[in-house]
Amino acid sequence: MRLRNVKNAKEILNSSPYYIDKPCEKKGSWDKVFSGIAPIHLEVGCGKGQFLINMAQEHPDINFIGMEYQESVLVRAIQKLEDKSIPNLKFICFNAFIIHEVFDHEIETLYLNFSDPWPKSRHAKRRLTSPDLLNEYDQIFKEEKIIIQKTDNIGLFAYSLENFSKHGYTLEKVTLDLASSDIPNIKTEYEEKFMNLGYKINYVKAVKK
Amino acid sequence: MRLRNVKNAKEILNSSPYYIDKPCEKKGSWDKVFSGIAPIHLEVGCGKGQFLINMAQEHPDINFIGMEYQESVLVRAIQKLEDKSIPNLKFICFNAFIIHEVFDHEIETLYLNFSDPWPKSRHAKRRLTSPDLLNEYDQIFKEEKIIIQKTDNIGLFAYSLENFSKHGYTLEKVTLDLASSDIPNIKTEYEEKFMNLGYKINYVKAVKK
Repeated sequence: MRLRNVKNAKEILNSSPYYIDKPCEKKGSWDKVFSGIAPIHLEVGCGKGQFLINMAQEHPDINFIGMEYQESVLVRAIQKLEDKSIPNLKFICFNAFIIHEVFDHEIETLYLNFSDPWPKSRHAKRRLTSPDLLNEYDQIFKEEKIIIQKTDNIGLFAYSLENFSKHGYTLEKVTLDLASSDIPNIKTEYEEKFMNLGYKINYVKAVKK
Repeated sequence: MRLRNVKNAKEILNSSPYYIDKPCEKKGSWDKVFSGIAPIHLEVGCGKGQFLINMAQEHPDINFIGMEYQESVLVRAIQKLEDKSIPNLKFICFNAFIIHEVFDHEIETLYLNFSDPWPKSRHAKRRLTSPDLLNEYDQIFKEEKIIIQKTDNIGLFAYSLENFSKHGYTLEKVTLDLASSDIPNIKTEYEEKFMNLGYKINYVKAVKK
Protein backbone atom coordinates (compact mmCIF):
# COMPACT_ATOMS: atom_id res chain seq x y z
CA MET A 1 0.00 0.00 0.00
CA ARG A 2 1.37 3.42 -0.95
CA LEU A 3 0.19 6.59 0.70
CA ARG A 4 1.48 10.15 0.71
CA ASN A 5 4.10 10.71 3.36
CA VAL A 6 2.50 12.00 6.52
CA LYS A 7 4.37 14.91 8.11
CA ASN A 8 5.53 14.22 11.65
CA ALA A 9 4.49 10.56 11.34
CA LYS A 10 7.03 9.54 13.96
CA GLU A 11 5.70 12.10 16.46
CA ILE A 12 2.08 11.08 15.88
CA LEU A 13 2.96 7.41 16.43
CA ASN A 14 5.02 8.06 19.54
CA SER A 15 2.22 10.05 21.15
CA SER A 16 -0.20 7.12 20.89
CA PRO A 17 -0.63 4.51 23.65
CA TYR A 18 -1.26 1.96 20.91
CA TYR A 19 2.19 2.36 19.39
CA ILE A 20 5.22 0.47 20.67
CA ASP A 21 8.50 2.11 19.69
CA LYS A 22 11.73 0.07 19.49
CA PRO A 23 9.92 -3.30 19.39
CA CYS A 24 13.19 -5.27 19.49
CA GLU A 25 13.50 -4.29 23.15
CA LYS A 26 10.29 -6.24 23.89
CA LYS A 27 11.59 -9.47 22.38
CA GLY A 28 10.81 -12.34 24.75
CA SER A 29 8.57 -10.21 26.97
CA TRP A 30 5.58 -9.24 24.85
CA ASP A 31 3.23 -10.65 27.47
CA LYS A 32 4.25 -7.73 29.71
CA VAL A 33 3.25 -5.17 27.08
CA PHE A 34 -0.39 -6.17 27.51
CA SER A 35 -2.41 -5.90 30.69
CA GLY A 36 -3.25 -9.61 30.72
CA ILE A 37 -1.56 -12.80 29.53
CA ALA A 38 -3.33 -14.18 26.47
CA PRO A 39 -2.44 -15.74 23.12
CA ILE A 40 -0.77 -13.19 20.84
CA HIS A 41 -1.96 -12.88 17.24
CA LEU A 42 0.12 -10.87 14.79
CA GLU A 43 -0.85 -9.25 11.49
CA VAL A 44 2.11 -8.59 9.21
CA GLY A 45 1.34 -5.77 6.81
CA CYS A 46 -1.61 -4.41 8.78
CA GLY A 47 -2.00 -1.32 6.61
CA LYS A 48 -4.64 1.09 7.91
CA GLY A 49 -5.64 -1.33 10.64
CA GLN A 50 -9.36 -1.93 10.08
CA PHE A 51 -9.08 -5.73 10.26
CA LEU A 52 -7.08 -5.77 13.48
CA ILE A 53 -9.09 -3.05 15.23
CA ASN A 54 -12.29 -5.03 14.62
CA MET A 55 -10.64 -8.34 15.53
CA ALA A 56 -9.36 -6.91 18.82
CA GLN A 57 -12.82 -5.66 19.73
CA GLU A 58 -14.49 -8.96 18.85
CA HIS A 59 -11.88 -11.06 20.68
CA PRO A 60 -10.96 -9.40 23.99
CA ASP A 61 -9.38 -12.71 25.11
CA ILE A 62 -6.62 -12.42 22.50
CA ASN A 63 -3.80 -9.87 22.35
CA PHE A 64 -3.26 -8.43 18.89
CA ILE A 65 -0.19 -6.81 17.35
CA GLY A 66 -0.28 -5.06 13.99
CA MET A 67 3.00 -4.70 12.13
CA GLU A 68 3.48 -2.34 9.22
CA TYR A 69 6.64 -1.28 7.45
CA GLN A 70 5.55 2.22 6.48
CA GLU A 71 5.10 4.78 9.26
CA SER A 72 2.81 6.92 7.09
CA VAL A 73 0.40 4.00 6.68
CA LEU A 74 0.48 3.09 10.35
CA VAL A 75 -0.50 6.68 11.23
CA ARG A 76 -3.87 6.01 9.58
CA ALA A 77 -4.45 3.02 11.87
CA ILE A 78 -3.41 4.99 14.94
CA GLN A 79 -5.72 7.88 13.99
CA LYS A 80 -8.72 5.51 13.91
CA LEU A 81 -8.11 4.70 17.58
CA GLU A 82 -8.20 8.23 18.97
CA ASP A 83 -11.63 7.85 20.61
CA LYS A 84 -11.33 4.15 21.41
CA SER A 85 -10.07 2.13 24.36
CA ILE A 86 -8.84 -1.30 23.23
CA PRO A 87 -6.37 -2.69 25.77
CA ASN A 88 -5.54 -5.83 23.73
CA LEU A 89 -4.17 -4.04 20.66
CA LYS A 90 -0.73 -2.62 19.82
CA PHE A 91 1.02 -1.54 16.64
CA ILE A 92 4.67 -1.65 15.64
CA CYS A 93 6.69 -0.44 12.68
CA PHE A 94 9.14 -3.07 11.49
CA ASN A 95 10.47 -5.10 8.57
CA ALA A 96 9.02 -8.62 8.22
CA PHE A 97 12.24 -9.94 6.72
CA ILE A 98 14.03 -9.71 10.08
CA ILE A 99 11.01 -10.31 12.30
CA HIS A 100 12.96 -12.76 14.48
CA GLU A 101 14.57 -9.66 16.01
CA VAL A 102 11.21 -8.71 17.52
CA PHE A 103 9.62 -11.98 18.67
CA ASP A 104 11.03 -15.10 20.29
CA HIS A 105 8.50 -17.96 20.02
CA GLU A 106 5.69 -15.74 21.27
CA ILE A 107 3.13 -15.72 18.44
CA GLU A 108 0.22 -18.13 18.09
CA THR A 109 -1.42 -16.97 14.88
CA LEU A 110 -0.11 -14.89 11.97
CA TYR A 111 -2.44 -13.04 9.59
CA LEU A 112 -1.35 -12.10 6.08
CA ASN A 113 -4.08 -10.03 4.46
CA PHE A 114 -3.78 -8.93 0.83
CA SER A 115 -0.01 -8.82 0.92
CA ASP A 116 1.79 -7.36 -2.08
CA PRO A 117 1.77 -10.18 -4.69
CA TRP A 118 5.08 -9.17 -6.32
CA PRO A 119 3.96 -10.90 -9.53
CA LYS A 120 7.31 -10.97 -11.34
CA SER A 121 9.27 -14.13 -10.55
CA ARG A 122 12.47 -12.16 -10.00
CA HIS A 123 10.67 -10.47 -7.09
CA ALA A 124 9.39 -13.74 -5.56
CA LYS A 125 11.76 -13.34 -2.60
CA ARG A 126 9.84 -10.23 -1.56
CA ARG A 127 6.56 -12.14 -1.13
CA LEU A 128 5.55 -12.61 2.50
CA THR A 129 5.12 -16.37 2.02
CA SER A 130 8.54 -17.09 0.47
CA PRO A 131 10.49 -20.08 1.84
CA ASP A 132 12.93 -17.64 3.52
CA LEU A 133 10.09 -15.88 5.33
CA LEU A 134 8.51 -19.16 6.42
CA ASN A 135 11.87 -19.98 8.02
CA GLU A 136 11.83 -16.57 9.64
CA TYR A 137 8.29 -17.12 11.01
CA ASP A 138 9.41 -20.45 12.55
CA GLN A 139 11.41 -18.35 15.02
CA ILE A 140 8.52 -16.18 16.16
CA PHE A 141 5.85 -18.87 16.56
CA LYS A 142 5.13 -20.86 19.68
CA GLU A 143 5.07 -24.63 19.19
CA GLU A 144 1.91 -24.69 17.08
CA LYS A 145 2.13 -22.42 14.04
CA ILE A 146 -1.01 -20.99 12.45
CA ILE A 147 -0.97 -18.78 9.35
CA ILE A 148 -4.21 -17.34 8.00
CA GLN A 149 -3.91 -15.73 4.59
CA LYS A 150 -6.42 -13.84 2.46
CA THR A 151 -5.70 -12.56 -1.03
CA ASP A 152 -7.49 -11.80 -4.29
CA ASN A 153 -4.30 -12.56 -6.22
CA ILE A 154 -4.38 -16.12 -7.58
CA GLY A 155 -0.65 -16.12 -8.35
CA LEU A 156 0.29 -15.25 -4.78
CA PHE A 157 -2.28 -17.72 -3.46
CA ALA A 158 -0.96 -20.68 -5.46
CA TYR A 159 2.62 -19.73 -4.50
CA SER A 160 1.65 -19.60 -0.82
CA LEU A 161 -0.19 -22.94 -0.86
CA GLU A 162 2.85 -24.66 -2.39
CA ASN A 163 5.25 -23.10 0.10
CA PHE A 164 3.08 -23.77 3.16
CA SER A 165 2.74 -27.39 2.09
CA LYS A 166 6.44 -27.86 1.34
CA HIS A 167 7.33 -26.24 4.68
CA GLY A 168 5.33 -28.84 6.63
CA TYR A 169 2.10 -26.92 7.11
CA THR A 170 -1.23 -28.73 6.73
CA LEU A 171 -3.92 -26.80 4.89
CA GLU A 172 -6.71 -27.07 7.45
CA LYS A 173 -9.11 -24.89 5.51
CA VAL A 174 -9.00 -23.61 1.93
CA THR A 175 -11.57 -21.68 -0.06
CA LEU A 176 -11.33 -19.87 -3.37
CA ASP A 177 -14.48 -17.86 -2.63
CA LEU A 178 -14.52 -16.62 0.94
CA ALA A 179 -17.83 -14.76 0.56
CA SER A 180 -19.72 -17.96 -0.27
CA SER A 181 -18.08 -20.00 2.49
CA ASP A 182 -19.15 -20.36 6.12
CA ILE A 183 -15.84 -19.01 7.46
CA PRO A 184 -16.34 -16.03 9.82
CA ASN A 185 -14.66 -13.04 8.23
CA ILE A 186 -13.63 -9.56 9.29
CA LYS A 187 -12.80 -7.49 6.24
CA THR A 188 -9.84 -5.24 5.57
CA GLU A 189 -10.34 -1.85 3.89
CA TYR A 190 -9.02 -3.28 0.64
CA GLU A 191 -11.18 -6.39 0.85
CA GLU A 192 -14.38 -4.43 1.39
CA LYS A 193 -13.74 -2.47 -1.78
CA PHE A 194 -12.81 -5.45 -3.93
CA MET A 195 -15.48 -7.83 -2.65
CA ASN A 196 -18.10 -5.20 -3.52
CA LEU A 197 -16.73 -5.22 -7.07
CA GLY A 198 -17.38 -8.97 -7.23
CA TYR A 199 -13.77 -10.16 -6.92
CA LYS A 200 -13.38 -13.56 -5.32
CA ILE A 201 -11.24 -13.74 -2.18
CA ASN A 202 -8.98 -16.74 -1.57
CA TYR A 203 -8.48 -17.91 2.01
CA VAL A 204 -6.24 -20.50 3.65
CA LYS A 205 -5.66 -21.56 7.24
CA ALA A 206 -2.36 -23.43 7.40
CA VAL A 207 -1.25 -25.21 10.58
CA LYS A 208 2.09 -26.75 11.53
CA LYS A 209 2.47 -28.71 14.74
CA MET B 1 -20.42 -37.11 -17.89
CA ARG B 2 -23.79 -38.35 -19.17
CA LEU B 3 -24.24 -39.75 -22.66
CA ARG B 4 -27.03 -41.68 -24.36
CA ASN B 5 -26.74 -45.38 -23.79
CA VAL B 6 -24.83 -47.01 -26.61
CA LYS B 7 -26.42 -50.21 -27.87
CA ASN B 8 -24.15 -53.22 -27.63
CA ALA B 9 -21.60 -51.22 -25.62
CA LYS B 10 -20.29 -54.37 -23.97
CA GLU B 11 -19.75 -56.08 -27.34
CA ILE B 12 -17.97 -53.06 -28.82
CA LEU B 13 -15.64 -52.88 -25.80
CA ASN B 14 -14.89 -56.59 -25.78
CA SER B 15 -13.96 -56.58 -29.45
CA SER B 16 -11.27 -53.92 -28.90
CA PRO B 17 -7.64 -54.81 -28.11
CA TYR B 18 -7.53 -51.67 -25.96
CA TYR B 19 -10.19 -52.93 -23.57
CA ILE B 20 -9.43 -55.18 -20.61
CA ASP B 21 -12.47 -57.07 -19.37
CA LYS B 22 -12.64 -58.37 -15.77
CA PRO B 23 -9.82 -56.09 -14.53
CA CYS B 24 -9.84 -57.64 -11.03
CA GLU B 25 -8.21 -60.71 -12.53
CA LYS B 26 -5.17 -58.61 -13.47
CA LYS B 27 -4.63 -57.36 -9.91
CA GLY B 28 -0.93 -57.65 -9.06
CA SER B 29 0.08 -58.48 -12.62
CA TRP B 30 -0.68 -55.36 -14.66
CA ASP B 31 2.90 -55.30 -15.91
CA LYS B 32 2.07 -58.41 -17.95
CA VAL B 33 -0.84 -56.70 -19.68
CA PHE B 34 1.59 -54.39 -21.45
CA SER B 35 4.32 -55.44 -23.84
CA GLY B 36 7.06 -53.78 -21.79
CA ILE B 37 7.60 -53.04 -18.10
CA ALA B 38 7.23 -49.32 -17.42
CA PRO B 39 5.66 -47.05 -14.81
CA ILE B 40 1.86 -47.28 -14.89
CA HIS B 41 -0.17 -44.08 -14.89
CA LEU B 42 -3.91 -44.27 -14.28
CA GLU B 43 -6.69 -41.83 -15.13
CA VAL B 44 -9.82 -42.30 -13.03
CA GLY B 45 -12.86 -41.00 -14.88
CA CYS B 46 -11.21 -40.91 -18.30
CA GLY B 47 -14.44 -40.08 -20.14
CA LYS B 48 -14.03 -40.06 -23.90
CA GLY B 49 -10.29 -40.62 -23.61
CA GLN B 50 -8.73 -37.67 -25.46
CA PHE B 51 -6.33 -36.82 -22.63
CA LEU B 52 -5.03 -40.35 -22.20
CA ILE B 53 -4.77 -41.13 -25.92
CA ASN B 54 -2.59 -38.06 -26.42
CA MET B 55 -0.57 -38.75 -23.27
CA ALA B 56 0.13 -42.33 -24.36
CA GLN B 57 1.36 -41.15 -27.75
CA GLU B 58 3.58 -38.45 -26.24
CA HIS B 59 5.02 -40.75 -23.57
CA PRO B 60 5.74 -44.19 -25.06
CA ASP B 61 7.91 -44.96 -22.02
CA ILE B 62 4.90 -44.95 -19.70
CA ASN B 63 2.00 -47.44 -19.63
CA PHE B 64 -1.41 -45.78 -19.34
CA ILE B 65 -4.70 -47.13 -18.07
CA GLY B 66 -7.96 -45.24 -18.43
CA MET B 67 -10.75 -46.11 -16.04
CA GLU B 68 -14.34 -45.11 -16.58
CA TYR B 69 -17.48 -46.19 -14.77
CA GLN B 70 -19.89 -45.90 -17.69
CA GLU B 71 -19.54 -48.36 -20.56
CA SER B 72 -21.34 -46.03 -22.96
CA VAL B 73 -18.76 -43.31 -22.34
CA LEU B 74 -15.83 -45.68 -22.68
CA VAL B 75 -17.11 -46.77 -26.09
CA ARG B 76 -16.36 -43.24 -27.35
CA ALA B 77 -12.75 -43.58 -26.25
CA ILE B 78 -12.43 -47.03 -27.82
CA GLN B 79 -13.93 -45.79 -31.10
CA LYS B 80 -11.24 -43.08 -31.35
CA LEU B 81 -8.59 -45.81 -31.39
CA GLU B 82 -9.87 -47.84 -34.33
CA ASP B 83 -7.16 -46.70 -36.75
CA LYS B 84 -4.41 -46.31 -34.17
CA SER B 85 -1.73 -48.56 -32.74
CA ILE B 86 -0.78 -47.50 -29.22
CA PRO B 87 0.72 -50.43 -27.31
CA ASN B 88 1.04 -48.54 -24.02
CA LEU B 89 -2.66 -47.81 -23.53
CA LYS B 90 -5.54 -49.83 -22.06
CA PHE B 91 -9.01 -49.03 -20.79
CA ILE B 92 -11.11 -50.61 -18.07
CA CYS B 93 -14.64 -50.16 -16.79
CA PHE B 94 -14.77 -50.08 -13.00
CA ASN B 95 -15.92 -48.24 -9.89
CA ALA B 96 -13.31 -45.98 -8.26
CA PHE B 97 -14.77 -46.57 -4.81
CA ILE B 98 -13.49 -50.16 -4.73
CA ILE B 99 -10.41 -49.61 -6.88
CA HIS B 100 -8.22 -51.65 -4.49
CA GLU B 101 -9.86 -54.72 -6.06
CA VAL B 102 -8.10 -53.91 -9.34
CA PHE B 103 -4.61 -52.71 -8.39
CA ASP B 104 -2.18 -53.81 -5.71
CA HIS B 105 0.52 -51.13 -5.26
CA GLU B 106 1.09 -50.91 -9.02
CA ILE B 107 0.29 -47.30 -9.91
CA GLU B 108 2.80 -44.45 -9.98
CA THR B 109 0.67 -41.49 -11.00
CA LEU B 110 -3.08 -40.89 -10.80
CA TYR B 111 -4.85 -38.29 -12.95
CA LEU B 112 -8.19 -36.80 -11.94
CA ASN B 113 -9.43 -34.55 -14.74
CA PHE B 114 -12.60 -32.53 -14.32
CA SER B 115 -14.20 -35.01 -11.96
CA ASP B 116 -17.82 -34.49 -10.99
CA PRO B 117 -17.71 -31.76 -8.29
CA TRP B 118 -20.80 -33.03 -6.39
CA PRO B 119 -21.30 -29.51 -5.00
CA LYS B 120 -23.82 -30.36 -2.26
CA SER B 121 -22.10 -31.18 1.03
CA ARG B 122 -24.31 -34.21 1.57
CA HIS B 123 -22.76 -35.64 -1.62
CA ALA B 124 -19.15 -34.91 -0.56
CA LYS B 125 -18.45 -38.62 -0.12
CA ARG B 126 -18.96 -39.10 -3.85
CA ARG B 127 -16.12 -36.72 -4.77
CA LEU B 128 -13.05 -38.50 -6.09
CA THR B 129 -10.79 -36.73 -3.58
CA SER B 130 -12.74 -37.58 -0.42
CA PRO B 131 -10.77 -38.89 2.58
CA ASP B 132 -12.24 -42.37 1.97
CA LEU B 133 -11.00 -42.40 -1.61
CA LEU B 134 -7.54 -41.14 -0.63
CA ASN B 135 -7.37 -44.17 1.70
CA GLU B 136 -8.48 -46.33 -1.21
CA TYR B 137 -5.77 -44.87 -3.48
CA ASP B 138 -3.12 -45.66 -0.83
CA GLN B 139 -3.67 -49.31 -1.70
CA ILE B 140 -3.12 -48.94 -5.44
CA PHE B 141 -0.04 -46.71 -5.38
CA LYS B 142 3.54 -47.84 -5.33
CA GLU B 143 5.65 -46.31 -2.57
CA GLU B 144 5.62 -42.77 -3.99
CA LYS B 145 2.12 -41.46 -4.60
CA ILE B 146 1.48 -38.78 -7.20
CA ILE B 147 -1.96 -37.30 -7.87
CA ILE B 148 -2.41 -34.72 -10.63
CA GLN B 149 -5.78 -33.00 -10.64
CA LYS B 150 -7.33 -30.48 -13.00
CA THR B 151 -10.71 -28.86 -12.48
CA ASP B 152 -12.58 -25.66 -13.27
CA ASN B 153 -14.67 -26.09 -10.12
CA ILE B 154 -13.26 -23.98 -7.28
CA GLY B 155 -15.31 -25.81 -4.64
CA LEU B 156 -13.92 -29.20 -5.63
CA PHE B 157 -10.42 -27.74 -5.93
CA ALA B 158 -10.39 -26.25 -2.41
CA TYR B 159 -11.85 -29.50 -1.02
CA SER B 160 -9.14 -31.52 -2.77
CA LEU B 161 -6.28 -29.29 -1.59
CA GLU B 162 -7.44 -29.63 2.02
CA ASN B 163 -7.81 -33.39 1.78
CA PHE B 164 -4.49 -33.96 0.00
CA SER B 165 -2.75 -31.88 2.64
CA LYS B 166 -4.47 -33.57 5.59
CA HIS B 167 -3.70 -36.98 4.09
CA GLY B 168 0.05 -36.28 4.09
CA TYR B 169 0.50 -35.16 0.50
CA THR B 170 2.78 -32.22 -0.28
CA LEU B 171 1.47 -29.81 -2.89
CA GLU B 172 4.46 -29.75 -5.22
CA LYS B 173 2.80 -27.52 -7.80
CA VAL B 174 -0.38 -25.45 -7.64
CA THR B 175 -1.84 -23.01 -10.10
CA LEU B 176 -5.24 -21.39 -10.32
CA ASP B 177 -4.74 -20.53 -13.98
CA LEU B 178 -3.19 -23.39 -15.89
CA ALA B 179 -3.24 -21.60 -19.25
CA SER B 180 -0.97 -18.83 -18.00
CA SER B 181 1.45 -21.20 -16.24
CA ASP B 182 4.49 -22.96 -17.71
CA ILE B 183 3.13 -26.43 -16.87
CA PRO B 184 2.98 -28.69 -19.96
CA ASN B 185 -0.66 -29.57 -20.53
CA ILE B 186 -2.62 -32.04 -22.63
CA LYS B 187 -6.26 -31.04 -22.70
CA THR B 188 -9.36 -33.15 -22.18
CA GLU B 189 -12.42 -32.70 -24.43
CA TYR B 190 -14.16 -30.80 -21.65
CA GLU B 191 -11.14 -28.62 -20.92
CA GLU B 192 -10.72 -27.58 -24.55
CA LYS B 193 -14.29 -26.34 -24.65
CA PHE B 194 -14.19 -24.50 -21.34
CA MET B 195 -10.73 -22.99 -21.73
CA ASN B 196 -11.86 -21.50 -25.05
CA LEU B 197 -14.73 -19.85 -23.18
CA GLY B 198 -12.19 -18.18 -20.90
CA TYR B 199 -12.73 -20.31 -17.79
CA LYS B 200 -9.70 -20.65 -15.57
CA ILE B 201 -8.42 -24.17 -14.93
CA ASN B 202 -7.04 -25.11 -11.51
CA TYR B 203 -4.17 -27.61 -11.34
CA VAL B 204 -2.39 -29.38 -8.51
CA LYS B 205 0.38 -31.96 -8.37
CA ALA B 206 0.31 -33.61 -4.95
CA VAL B 207 3.04 -36.01 -3.87
CA LYS B 208 3.25 -38.33 -0.85
CA LYS B 209 6.43 -40.27 -0.09
